[in-house]
Amino acid sequence: MRQSMTLIPTLREVPADAEIKSHQLLLRAGFIKQIASGIYTYLPLAKRTLDKVEKIVREEMENAGAAEVLMPSLQPAELWQESERWYSYGPELMRMKDRHGREFALGPTHEEVITSIIKDVVQSYKRLPLNIYQIQTKFRDEQRPRFGLLRGREFIMKDAYSFHTSKESLDEVYDKMYTAYKNIFTRCGLDFRAVLADSGAIGGKDSQEFMVLSDIGEDTIAYSDASDYAANIEMAEVVCNDDKPSVEEKPLEKVETINQKTIEQVSSFLNVSPRECIKSLVLKVDDEFVMVLVRGDHEVNDIKVKNVLNASLVEFADESEVEELLGCSFGSIGPVGLPETIKVYADNAVQAMINATCGANENNYHYINVVPNRDFSVESYADFRFIQEGDPSPDGQGTIRFARGIEVGHIFKLGTKYSDSMDAKFLDENGRAQSYIMGCYGIGISRTLTAVAEQCNDDNGLVWPVDLAPYHIHLISVNVKDDVQVQLSNDLYDSLKQNGYEVLHDDRNERPGVKFKDSDLIGLPVRITIGKKASEGIVEVKDRKTGEMLEVSKDDLLPLLKKLLQM
Amino acid sequence: MRQSMTLIPTLREVPADAEIKSHQLLLRAGFIKQIASGIYTYLPLAKRTLDKVEKIVREEMENAGAAEVLMPSLQPAELWQESERWYSYGPELMRMKDRHGREFALGPTHEEVITSIIKDVVQSYKRLPLNIYQIQTKFRDEQRPRFGLLRGREFIMKDAYSFHTSKESLDEVYDKMYTAYKNIFTRCGLDFRAVLADSGAIGGKDSQEFMVLSDIGEDTIAYSDASDYAANIEMAEVVCNDDKPSVEEKPLEKVETINQKTIEQVSSFLNVSPRECIKSLVLKVDDEFVMVLVRGDHEVNDIKVKNVLNASLVEFADESEVEELLGCSFGSIGPVGLPETIKVYADNAVQAMINATCGANENNYHYINVVPNRDFSVESYADFRFIQEGDPSPDGQGTIRFARGIEVGHIFKLGTKYSDSMDAKFLDENGRAQSYIMGCYGIGISRTLTAVAEQCNDDNGLVWPVDLAPYHIHLISVNVKDDVQVQLSNDLYDSLKQNGYEVLHDDRNERPGVKFKDSDLIGLPVRITIGKKASEGIVEVKDRKTGEMLEVSKDDLLPLLKKLLQM
Repeated sequence: MRQSMTLIPTLREVPADAEIKSHQLLLRAGFIKQIASGIYTYLPLAKRTLDKVEKIVREEMENAGAAEVLMPSLQPAELWQESERWYSYGPELMRMKDRHGREFALGPTHEEVITSIIKDVVQSYKRLPLNIYQIQTKFRDEQRPRFGLLRGREFIMKDAYSFHTSKESLDEVYDKMYTAYKNIFTRCGLDFRAVLADSGAIGGKDSQEFMVLSDIGEDTIAYSDASDYAANIEMAEVVCNDDKPSVEEKPLEKVETINQKTIEQVSSFLNVSPRECIKSLVLKVDDEFVMVLVRGDHEVNDIKVKNVLNASLVEFADESEVEELLGCSFGSIGPVGLPETIKVYADNAVQAMINATCGANENNYHYINVVPNRDFSVESYADFRFIQEGDPSPDGQGTIRFARGIEVGHIFKLGTKYSDSMDAKFLDENGRAQSYIMGCYGIGISRTLTAVAEQCNDDNGLVWPVDLAPYHIHLISVNVKDDVQVQLSNDLYDSLKQNGYEVLHDDRNERPGVKFKDSDLIGLPVRITIGKKASEGIVEVKDRKTGEMLEVSKDDLLPLLKKLLQM
Repeated sequence: MRQSMTLIPTLREVPADAEIKSHQLLLRAGFIKQIASGIYTYLPLAKRTLDKVEKIVREEMENAGAAEVLMPSLQPAELWQESERWYSYGPELMRMKDRHGREFALGPTHEEVITSIIKDVVQSYKRLPLNIYQIQTKFRDEQRPRFGLLRGREFIMKDAYSFHTSKESLDEVYDKMYTAYKNIFTRCGLDFRAVLADSGAIGGKDSQEFMVLSDIGEDTIAYSDASDYAANIEMAEVVCNDDKPSVEEKPLEKVETINQKTIEQVSSFLNVSPRECIKSLVLKVDDEFVMVLVRGDHEVNDIKVKNVLNASLVEFADESEVEELLGCSFGSIGPVGLPETIKVYADNAVQAMINATCGANENNYHYINVVPNRDFSVESYADFRFIQEGDPSPDGQGTIRFARGIEVGHIFKLGTKYSDSMDAKFLDENGRAQSYIMGCYGIGISRTLTAVAEQCNDDNGLVWPVDLAPYHIHLISVNVKDDVQVQLSNDLYDSLKQNGYEVLHDDRNERPGVKFKDSDLIGLPVRITIGKKASEGIVEVKDRKTGEMLEVSKDDLLPLLKKLLQM
């Protein structure tokens, strides 16, 4: 493509409201243009990179046995009312009325539509499993759109939905999609982790997020430094190998701790370490108050409490509730001498504590030399805490580290959530009606573009991996009024295209400095400059990533490109 | 693709509300599924054909020098208010509010968005011309959606917009786009005409519609039986070669014509032919009444009146207005003895009339032996009538015939309509601000799919042209429990794919009759059936279009396919 014929409006200044690198660079390099808050036009360069991401996604979806469709953006409210998401989705769901007053949702996702289609046309177990996907513009009315394409209101998603007669069949397709997702993000050149995510009551390995590692990520990941284990910190399982220390149990003793409330204050005042203290919290679990204990240097993970106790709602009690219940404030709570109506649950690590310190349920007093099971009883021990850096990895390999991540994909075993609510059934081998078992699988296509831009850049601009670059080569004519340079540029342009390269030819009548700056900013993998040595048939080749520059004869160009681009 | 893994829900019955062949067949062959009135899901087969149409469109757009972008569907109301289309577009424009109450249009077209972008980023004449296109889902809230994808509320369009410094530059790009459009519809295998369309005051050759000839078309086209001349009937120019007959002028005479009102009644009563009568109509042209005359066998074309008189609004006067103005009813209007305040315009054919008949502006009376210019004066003669079948083609070649057409494309010289209203200017060579001169160019992608389905079918189903077929070959295993058949099917599937063919493999456990009926309905160009002769290595090949069937050895298959598919 001749640069004079396409639209690449580069900017010299960093746009004021662009906080993160990818947003700044995609704006500055002329890839995107904002139309309204969280709403962008993909200009020609971004469109080409999106096409490449989509091509990779389509190839891997085909390998995974998925068939492509295109569902509408306008979804009748009735479908969303059947699934009840019309009521639960909140203001993120964009809604509108047609000229006859009928209500529609602008699709943020398509579980309802695909379930209604499959329900209509697939009646027999013989036609299952099915795995259906689409690549489509989605809508979500974010409260605070930001970070450019990362949290927009109109964005491109790949969403897939699978339908099964059995959990085993779902597992099989889920695993295929997992492999497809790993292939996709690997091919996109991303540094990512597949992360165990919260999947509510389904639990276990039934939901995984694909996270691109990045400091600007909105989620924190716990990962092993020695294996590919990774999990959302809310989800990461804690393995407790603590043995009870072989010290003598001392007698329980109540001590005065005037105005000492936090773990730090109490441990410092009593000259013990925080890990020798018991942190006691009161939680309201489905309207029942319980006490949860963790070690003083640990934090309670309410999602784990919810999952272990199989609860619908878990909240931390507020201080007035604690005072009414126990007659003391937050800083003096403890499990010793509790009314029997309050059940005590403790993290595994508490079981190995001996001669510990805890609140006495009386302001300004703590117990010391507390021994679990001797001085208080525990309903059950389980994994109730957040994982921490330095913990052993749950897979037994290595140590946990933390990182921040950008979610670019999510695979999820839905089970019968939608088929039950929408009464979507097939007839099994015995002619009995059964709810479809479903999976769903999303990839943020425009998010992936941003994630790549966020990971692949330097001080001068973007640095695209070959497979996602809008073009492979930036061919620059230094002086478009010099006939020899123009002739060589045109010849090279044609021959490079014939050799399968995608070439952006800067044929603009601009100063060389402007062209070089734009070229670095846009970040195509290879720059070829046709300058004064054109008459000798010599051109300059620059590797955008390493910055290395070479002068070569035009006859030696193709072998060099083959090496540099490795397509 | 294995048919068991994709979604092709064929139907035996014709769906009740599908009026036209393409709608019926696309539903019955499992290409589309309705989600709401005028809103469809493209199932896997339709998606594949859409992809092929889009690929052709992209190739031809690239040849025409257009660069691809993707603009958002959500368009801020402010842009539409600037162009004033927010007020003029009517209820077809889908509108909505975001969570903060800001208004948006769901784009039916993108003149406003692209003009606002170009205005922002292209300041200099040096960056023009530009031709920018996208392929995108559009929204239009049709009053009565019908004919399946033909008049839907959510549909796929290719829309392009070009920006120029001069009319000459626009002409050049317009011509390139014209050629691209001809190539696109030719490559889609369509029988179409490029038709001159009404472009309002711009006039002339500045707007062309691409019409696929079809009896179900909503527009009527006038075309030459001997050239490629074609025009919307509103637009078709009439060439008048009539000479005054060499007969003696008779004296004007007023005759009684009691209760004779229509041309048919009067001509029959007076024993003359309708073509010897003058048909007189009163029109309100921008609030001024004028009289327009055509021959009795012709019809007044108000769009031509509007264009010739350079008017904003032209309406036919109602009978009460005529009675107040002339003192007579519709059936007795005529140009003789009119008050001078009423200007008379006449169609070219009237100039050649002699001894004609017309109303006397007095009920129950007509004049006979009327001679134009002798008995009444005419402000000007021009082409004021609708073209008719049998008229000479305006290009001098052949005779006009009528046909009905489905509009699949439209190219249009916009001029400065949007750049003026949106204050979108560039600086010319002298540093003066000038409005961009614009063109716009649309193709209905999902409409094109329907038009092909409408033209390419027979009693058994669809008959896809090779270049648009969802797959090239339908490979049918007659008995999926016969190991020999299965083995040969799998081997052939692999080898056909390796040879570049796209194959749909019917591996379903269904009766052969069902498979053959489905196959005819879906309409892939070639069917290969693996049946009992699999053990001898013999397969059956059917040409869907001709119905011809051949048994061939598997070793002779590839040369035969090469001949049949001619890719």
